[in-house]
Amino acid sequence: MINGNNIIACNYTEVRGQAFTATNPSTDEKLEGEFYGADKLIIDKTLDAATAAFKVYKSILPAAKAKFLRAIADEITTLGETLINRAVAESGLPLGRITAEMGRTTGQLRMFANLVEEGSWVDAVIDTAKPERTPLPISNISRMFAAIGPVVVFGASNFPLAFSVAGGDSASALAAGCPIIVKAHPAHPGTSALVGQAISKAAVDTGMPAGVFSLLFDSGYDVGAQLVKHEQTKAVTFTGSFKGGMALIRLAQERKTIIPVFTEMGSINPVVLLPGILASQPETLAAKYAASITLGAGQFCTNPGLILAIKSPGLDQFVTALAGAIETAPSATMLTSGIWKNYKALSGEALTQPGIGLIAKSNATNSEKVNQSVATVATVSAKTFIANKKLSEEVFGPWSLLVVADDADELQQVIESLEGQLTTTVMAEKEELPKYTSIINALTDITGRMILNGVPTGVEVCAAMQHGGPFPATSDSRFTSVGTGAIYRFVRPVAWQDWEDSLLPLELQAANPLKIWRQVDNNLTKD
Amino acid sequence: MINGNNIIACNYTEVRGQAFTATNPSTDEKLEGEFYGADKLIIDKTLDAATAAFKVYKSILPAAKAKFLRAIADEITTLGETLINRAVAESGLPLGRITAEMGRTTGQLRMFANLVEEGSWVDAVIDTAKPERTPLPISNISRMFAAIGPVVVFGASNFPLAFSVAGGDSASALAAGCPIIVKAHPAHPGTSALVGQAISKAAVDTGMPAGVFSLLFDSGYDVGAQLVKHEQTKAVTFTGSFKGGMALIRLAQERKTIIPVFTEMGSINPVVLLPGILASQPETLAAKYAASITLGAGQFCTNPGLILAIKSPGLDQFVTALAGAIETAPSATMLTSGIWKNYKALSGEALTQPGIGLIAKSNATNSEKVNQSVATVATVSAKTFIANKKLSEEVFGPWSLLVVADDADELQQVIESLEGQLTTTVMAEKEELPKYTSIINALTDITGRMILNGVPTGVEVCAAMQHGGPFPATSDSRFTSVGTGAIYRFVRPVAWQDWEDSLLPLELQAANPLKIWRQVDNNLTKD
Repeated sequence: MINGNNIIACNYTEVRGQAFTATNPSTDEKLEGEFYGADKLIIDKTLDAATAAFKVYKSILPAAKAKFLRAIADEITTLGETLINRAVAESGLPLGRITAEMGRTTGQLRMFANLVEEGSWVDAVIDTAKPERTPLPISNISRMFAAIGPVVVFGASNFPLAFSVAGGDSASALAAGCPIIVKAHPAHPGTSALVGQAISKAAVDTGMPAGVFSLLFDSGYDVGAQLVKHEQTKAVTFTGSFKGGMALIRLAQERKTIIPVFTEMGSINPVVLLPGILASQPETLAAKYAASITLGAGQFCTNPGLILAIKSPGLDQFVTALAGAIETAPSATMLTSGIWKNYKALSGEALTQPGIGLIAKSNATNSEKVNQSVATVATVSAKTFIANKKLSEEVFGPWSLLVVADDADELQQVIESLEGQLTTTVMAEKEELPKYTSIINALTDITGRMILNGVPTGVEVCAAMQHGGPFPATSDSRFTSVGTGAIYRFVRPVAWQDWEDSLLPLELQAANPLKIWRQVDNNLTKD
Repeated sequence: MINGNNIIACNYTEVRGQAFTATNPSTDEKLEGEFYGADKLIIDKTLDAATAAFKVYKSILPAAKAKFLRAIADEITTLGETLINRAVAESGLPLGRITAEMGRTTGQLRMFANLVEEGSWVDAVIDTAKPERTPLPISNISRMFAAIGPVVVFGASNFPLAFSVAGGDSASALAAGCPIIVKAHPAHPGTSALVGQAISKAAVDTGMPAGVFSLLFDSGYDVGAQLVKHEQTKAVTFTGSFKGGMALIRLAQERKTIIPVFTEMGSINPVVLLPGILASQPETLAAKYAASITLGAGQFCTNPGLILAIKSPGLDQFVTALAGAIETAPSATMLTSGIWKNYKALSGEALTQPGIGLIAKSNATNSEKVNQSVATVATVSAKTFIANKKLSEEVFGPWSLLVVADDADELQQVIESLEGQLTTTVMAEKEELPKYTSIINALTDITGRMILNGVPTGVEVCAAMQHGGPFPATSDSRFTSVGTGAIYRFVRPVAWQDWEDSLLPLELQAANPLKIWRQVDNNLTKD
């Protein structure tokens, strides 16, 4: 039995707004459990609790924070099949995928536990005093990153675990020292409630201030809007559609105080197929890309929605092979009936644009389930693509558009007509790369991640990862939402001048008690 | 003879908008030279040139960038007395101050030259491939900071050299690899033109793409507004009033693409005088703070505009001594007649607020000059201060307000009623600090820099400096505008996945040809 009450400061509240239920997208049948929307009173109480918790949580010892993060991972693992089955039922995603996603989610929590425990992430910089400087002596100044305050995290529909209640945004905000208020995604409230229960238990068991975590429900938009506009909210994270992300940004612009709002709003992830590799291995390319386009019913931020190439016999072979693979690509349940309807409408609309030709549409639809994706690839000339902005809009689902250029110059024009992207990919024979530096250069200007001879789907969770790109891919290209770097979204530098050593944060004390890497008088050292 | 034409891509243009002249604020007399406002055509040409230059400049070698930055410093030094005398005439600031500011300006340029030459600032992170990982192998992923694009820099009135055409914003943007378009402050167009000439010469002499630098004039607001709204602008920096900063932020919110806008909008820099030090050295404190309040006619972002204390006999002695020092504080020319009028109006208005008492006003006004500052300090009870939001607004000039609390709890309430600040200061005997941890904790939440037993005026240019605080002190507390950290405002991380080693930026190549510090598989190394 899932508890569908809102969680304020790790405690269920009996105050209940409008009730709603979850739906299994494979069957459109209602799932067990009732969930209750939050209201203004609940929101105010939540933010008050988060603000109070922040005063303590922002400076708890790294080891205690790491213990909390690991305890969340353990509690999620303990939920096991209960959680996995509910997430499968609410998302329509296959068991294998959800199992892997659970591993990624607990892995992320443990990664941030290791990061804060090691401690050097605070970027401590110490410039020691120079009393002999004239005309004025130089003070001792030291600086490190400090937490920014309560963070509102919006759960995303396409990763019910890894980008939701205990996902990367939550893990990185908690690691930074910020209390979180999660707005559950209405498509997977049961999954959210289970994970919320796990975080609450972990917080209580490890002695965290209760306001460090809250979970609020709403089947509509009002709770999210109020959370974004609340003056005690100090940052917001969101992964979803361009429309949804921009709505939050516009709401935040009405605030009295300006706060960072991190929205990841999708991307069409252009893939450039260079002539050499098209000539040498058109079928391999086609197989690889048919798989990437249809992976997870195309419901990834990094789905390859745009393929760019110069016309050639190799490209013709690629198109033939791609058509064959797409025609037989099995359907899959999409996340919600809304997303399925939207995919049907947008892919249909794209196919009616002037100059668009269908390459292939899958025939392998599963008629026993509903909300089934139909993989579709189409083609258009570079000129038509550049002239029609509609064609560079994201179609969320297993869709890709092949744009065919007459030559390298036209290919470059296509790239220069594009907006910001999460990823760009080049498929090439190594020898041909130096001939296309101008194209590579143009791609780097619009992307957060450049891939060579791979597929954009699959985002490794690691220190070097950049998941974030120029607008509109994300609202702030200077940050990543995946990997250890995600923590830097929630901190600001604070400098201490001539401060009493024993009262400084441990990270800045002269003896370096935490033995972290620090920059002291311009030298990196652990001394 | 100063050339008052706009500079587009290091070249003067003969296209001239509305003419204006500069005024000597000590005499209200017109200064030599005519300057010409820019127009839409000039702005478009400038941004086109900057965008074209970016393609080259973003990836020029560190050594070349360092040479350019040092050449700017050398050209400014060569201008010598011509520049110093013009800056004194246009700003009313004393010769000694402007001479020191020139040293700071060239020092900042050389500091950034050293930073880019050393090279580790790009924060290179490399996670090497793990082909053995199952079910999928791990790719090689490397990441570093890359320049964001053309930056619009607004010159500030209060630092005609160090926060103007070749000031910290320009130096850090150029160091990051971003072309700059400077909007000259209309109060010192001659100083701006001279420095603009120096940068242009340095750019040409060191072979930079010409679009790396442009300088535009306007006696009003239109050119600035157009620059902020221009879609080719990728970031904006501004130091000035809250009203001015917010106007730019609101303009930027109308843009189609979201960009970072860094506004530093002033601060009242609260100073807490603890009871122990008030008892032991009230006169020393008074002398120190009278000097800090009146330094540079109080025209610093970090001027101590608010002094907080608990009532005590020591505080009475402090007040008596402060009154004596302020009464005899010499006047100084304010930056512009507008700033002088504003200071007169705002300080006058503050004195008429209910419950305000005058502590002292300077009698030592220089009647031979105009626009002369009159140092003023006043006092108010904590209760009255908390109840009247007007009293926590910045009065730009040699003004400070002493807020007297009944006890430590009330002092804490005063701090909790304050908005974000650039600095907060505690004056204390070391032994009494542990008794006031709650107050210190509250101060850290609202500040970018915590000072012990010093004055907030005087911002050291160094790696550990944080000059930026929670809103409204700055629009983005996660960044600094002073010190080497200022470079991070203008970069975003870009990741490379399985990229061809020889085509990677030098900073990420396997052999580490630049011998910079990098994080490789979670270890910091120069290998």
